[in-house]
Amino acid sequence: MSPILADSSSGSLPERDAYGKNGFVHIKNPHLDLLPEDILYHFDLGTKTHDLPSMFGDVKHGMGIPSISIMLHELIKLLHHAKCRDVTIIRIGTSGGIGIEPGSVVITDVAVDSFFRPQFEQVVLDKVVVRNTELHKELAEDLLQCSKEIASFPTIIGHTMCTYDFYEGQGRLDGALCSFSKEEKFEYLQRAFTAGVRNIEMESTVFAAMCYLCGLKAAVVCVTLLNRLEGDQIAESHETLTEYQKRPQQLIAAYIKKQLNIS
Amino acid sequence: MSPILADSSSGSLPERDAYGKNGFVHIKNPHLDLLPEDILYHFDLGTKTHDLPSMFGDVKHGMGIPSISIMLHELIKLLHHAKCRDVTIIRIGTSGGIGIEPGSVVITDVAVDSFFRPQFEQVVLDKVVVRNTELHKELAEDLLQCSKEIASFPTIIGHTMCTYDFYEGQGRLDGALCSFSKEEKFEYLQRAFTAGVRNIEMESTVFAAMCYLCGLKAAVVCVTLLNRLEGDQIAESHETLTEYQKRPQQLIAAYIKKQLNIS
Repeated sequence: MSPILADSSSGSLPERDAYGKNGFVHIKNPHLDLLPEDILYHFDLGTKTHDLPSMFGDVKHGMGIPSISIMLHELIKLLHHAKCRDVTIIRIGTSGGIGIEPGSVVITDVAVDSFFRPQFEQVVLDKVVVRNTELHKELAEDLLQCSKEIASFPTIIGHTMCTYDFYEGQGRLDGALCSFSKEEKFEYLQRAFTAGVRNIEMESTVFAAMCYLCGLKAAVVCVTLLNRLEGDQIAESHETLTEYQKRPQQLIAAYIKKQLNIS
Repeated sequence: MSPILADSSSGSLPERDAYGKNGFVHIKNPHLDLLPEDILYHFDLGTKTHDLPSMFGDVKHGMGIPSISIMLHELIKLLHHAKCRDVTIIRIGTSGGIGIEPGSVVITDVAVDSFFRPQFEQVVLDKVVVRNTELHKELAEDLLQCSKEIASFPTIIGHTMCTYDFYEGQGRLDGALCSFSKEEKFEYLQRAFTAGVRNIEMESTVFAAMCYLCGLKAAVVCVTLLNRLEGDQIAESHETLTEYQKRPQQLIAAYIKKQLNIS
């Protein structure tokens, strides 16, 4: 499935490549070749000052942060400059669950926006470009299989809703601002559940879109800290939450071991 | 100027209050009164476990971070629970300049979006609510006056453009993804300049919108690290950048001293 350009006049370069063939991380920016040096400002690294292939050539990163798009731009350029091949990138983190037991791990099949659409709207200059947010199907299935083998916590594949806001955007009644009723909140979350959404977080759409465009095999694996159909505030003890937060790491560690044939 | 509800069916509570009368931070959420305890999850604080008025009652915070809306929700609730009065909140930080000398400080009069509109689109459940992004006019003028008194770097009042993305959203040619030409970039930045935009950052619209709605006297004061009409990568030395980054702090420190009558 190709991403769709919302405005066909928005660029001369079609955005149609998906997972690449040669294993290298490819970058969709013809201007980079013209730069005498490329400085990855937020990492304090440059192509002239650092030997990126020797420093990072064997890296397979996993991360989950709010400014994930900035990080992904620089991380993807880093992987490109370092000539990394066959990179798998996995976002792990926490999320709010919908209609599932707290502590469940959700492997995302597709990230959806606040309107349950499987897409990410990227503003490019003043044009809105709509991008595909499917995650890598086979990787998601491999991760689910892995979870069955370790069998220590419930794991499912489902849609993940990605919002720009933790409070009003996720229908929380406990923010500094709230203009909807408890009933409107539940009606919305119930519609999300019916649309296939099993958890909510704040990074997955842009993560899925950028990884897809740059040919990175990508997965999103988040544990749910609460069931949003039952409340907004997190009621579990600190110890329980700490244990929950380790679950995506445990699953990914098991997956990495399996890939490397370490028992 | 009142914020505008894009969808009039989206809430029964009109969003019309601006700067409050009694000086307290007011919260626009009727559900909060019904909670037995309000836990500010990301701060690890609660209204039952902590005496917020004694801990934070004298605080006047300033901050600038990517997940600023989460922080603002919890900070504003904290200020409310702590019964803070007459709070002034100032975001300080760095930005990209448009058509002004690097190192210039921009005090924002109004934050605009990628389309140069003076508004913030907040998704509330699945409705888009349009909010006012004007900053406090008198505070901006007081800060400008203060900059004239210290007179150590150029300071102006201007529009600040706030984007969701550092690369494609700000017309950078050096991201991992770029589908526009150098000419399209310059044409866009030139239009931004003509619309009154003097710098670009990533937090000001939501900051302005939330502060306005909650009656906080708010300002945005950012130094510009480069002139985007001349390039995308930051060319100044580390020492110069460090000096630039101190400028908003110097200005705010001078302003605070003046308010407190400290010479």
